[in-house]
Order: sequence, then structure tokens, then C-alpha cells
Amino acid sequence: MKKIIVYIANSLDGYIADKNMSIDWLNECATNDNEEGSYDTFYNSIDTVILGKTTYNQIIKELSPTVWPYSDKMTYVITNDKIGEKDNIKASNDLVNLVNKIKNEEGKNIWICGGASIINTLIKADLIDEFHITIVPIILGGGVKLFDNTLPKIKLKLINTKKYNGYVDLIYIKD
Amino acid sequence: MKKIIVYIANSLDGYIADKNMSIDWLNECATNDNEEGSYDTFYNSIDTVILGKTTYNQIIKELSPTVWPYSDKMTYVITNDKIGEKDNIKASNDLVNLVNKIKNEEGKNIWICGGASIINTLIKADLIDEFHITIVPIILGGGVKLFDNTLPKIKLKLINTKKYNGYVDLIYIKD
Repeated sequence: MKKIIVYIANSLDGYIADKNMSIDWLNECATNDNEEGSYDTFYNSIDTVILGKTTYNQIIKELSPTVWPYSDKMTYVITNDKIGEKDNIKASNDLVNLVNKIKNEEGKNIWICGGASIINTLIKADLIDEFHITIVPIILGGGVKLFDNTLPKIKLKLINTKKYNGYVDLIYIKD
Repeated sequence: MKKIIVYIANSLDGYIADKNMSIDWLNECATNDNEEGSYDTFYNSIDTVILGKTTYNQIIKELSPTVWPYSDKMTYVITNDKIGEKDNIKASNDLVNLVNKIKNEEGKNIWICGGASIINTLIKADLIDEFHITIVPIILGGGVKLFDNTLPKIKLKLINTKKYNGYVDLIYIKD
């Protein structure tokens, strides 16, 4: 069975985007230590990407307008709108049923890429197997919270940490 | 010169107390690994404790009603009210001036013990030298935020981490 993994960067005060909805601060904060991060290993462990329409638009309009960065994975964009679907990019308007269906398929894991509403919906549906959160060394003072205030109390179990370039990855499963 | 250190436990979603103002969840989350934490070493590195009236009342009424736990340190309670002052427990109604004064004294470091308003006031006054934040493996879904939404963007520099009993200490200085 595929594991469903939230892999995301978070400011020390708990925001995944700043007050301007920007993620520029992610790159501002790296040191020059060139220690190996966790992205490549993580990316090789998944075969499916799930993201919201806002996150999808950020990628195709700002972050990577010329080339779709996850072309070797199956991507699902959660939206009621039409998008330019391709063989490896599909739209879905039913997040929870989609995840329940594909998690039983053979293959690698599923990356829940964002945004916050996608993540929080899946937490409430008890569908997240692992949280892989990169703590970025910055206080933002506001923005888009990773974990929203409608969540219940959820105990976690720390399974690993990794420190590189001033960042710290915290990896949890449900307790 | 004394260093001014915020040393505090924080839920993964950024709260130092839950929706009921309780900190019961701090103890619920420990594993039984009996790995050595950071408290003793930290406590030996300070000679002064600064806390707000609410935190002070929590300690004397709930956490440790029979014995004052920081009797070997100088404690300042930030309040406009009268408290039962003793040789080693004084009241002050001027947090920023107090910290500016005592940080230049000889001796060990200063522990900013909480609560959030004390911490955020000192961050805004640029008076925190070090953040020593223990990430507790729990999502609370609401409560008292460690970092409030009036803070500016502040870049930090990770200087150390420590993992024990499911907790992770993240230690930062200003970048």
C-alpha cells in the first residue's frame, strides 16, 4: 500500500507561505554549507503528486513556467475547474475519495504537496501516514498556516530528524 | 554580558498552551526512551528567570504549589500588581528596561520563561539572543501561539539540535 506523505517546508512560526502568499523566503534562508538535503531521496520514493489548484498555478506560472517539474510522476490537481489535462496530469474534485482509491494501488508513495487546505482536509480524514516537515530558520510573523485551527489534538511519533544547511527535517508518523 | 534566552516547549503547530490554557500535553507526549533532555544543562547555565504574572500564577497555584522551583535563581515577575516579593522573587512593571539593565550585569544567562506576551515583547525590542525551542510531537489545533502575528520577518541561524524521547530541541541565534 502506498504511504501518504506531507512533505513541506514550514517557517519556525508555522507558515508555509508569507503574508503575500510568497515562498521567496525558502531560498533566502539557506546557508552555503552544501550539506545534502532530503528532497532527492524523498522524490525518488514517490510516484504520485497531489496538489491544490493554487499550488498548481504557482508552479506553472511562477516557479517553473517552461517545464512541468514532476513529469515523471502522476499528478492530480484538486479543483472543480478545468485544467489542461495530460497523460500524467489529471484533475479531480474529490480529494478524499481519490486518495482512498489510489493508496491501495501498487507502486511508490504519494506526495501531498500542498496547499494548506489539501493537507488539513486529509489530516481530518485521517489519511496522512507521515509528516516530513522542514523547519526553515525564519520567523515570518504571519501568512498561510500549515496546520489550521480546525484540527483536533493529534499525537505524533518522531521517527527521524535531519539537519542540513540551517534547515531541520522533522519526520513523524501518527502515534 | 548575560545572554537572553527563550527556552520553551512548543507543539508542532506552534502553541505553548492548548485551547484550555493547559500544558498537560507536555507530559503526555514523552516516550519511555529515557534519553537525557536539555533542561538540566540549560538550567545550570542561567542565574535569572523572567516570567509573566500568568505563568507565575500557574507555577505557584498548579505546577509547584508547595515549593518555589527556581529558588536558587533570581526571578523577576512582570506585573503591575503586587506579589509576595522575597529576596529572590521581585516584581517589575517595566520588562524592557529591566532586561536592558540586568543583561549587562556579571553572571550567568537569563531565562525568558514565558508567557507569549513577554517573549513577543522582547523579540520586538530585539532583546532575544537565543531561541531554544523544544518541538513536542503533537498537533494541538489551537491555543496560545509562541510567536504572535505582530512580529516582523526575522531570519535566524540554526546553531544546534538535540533529539530525545520523541522531542527535538532547535537552537537558533539571530542571523
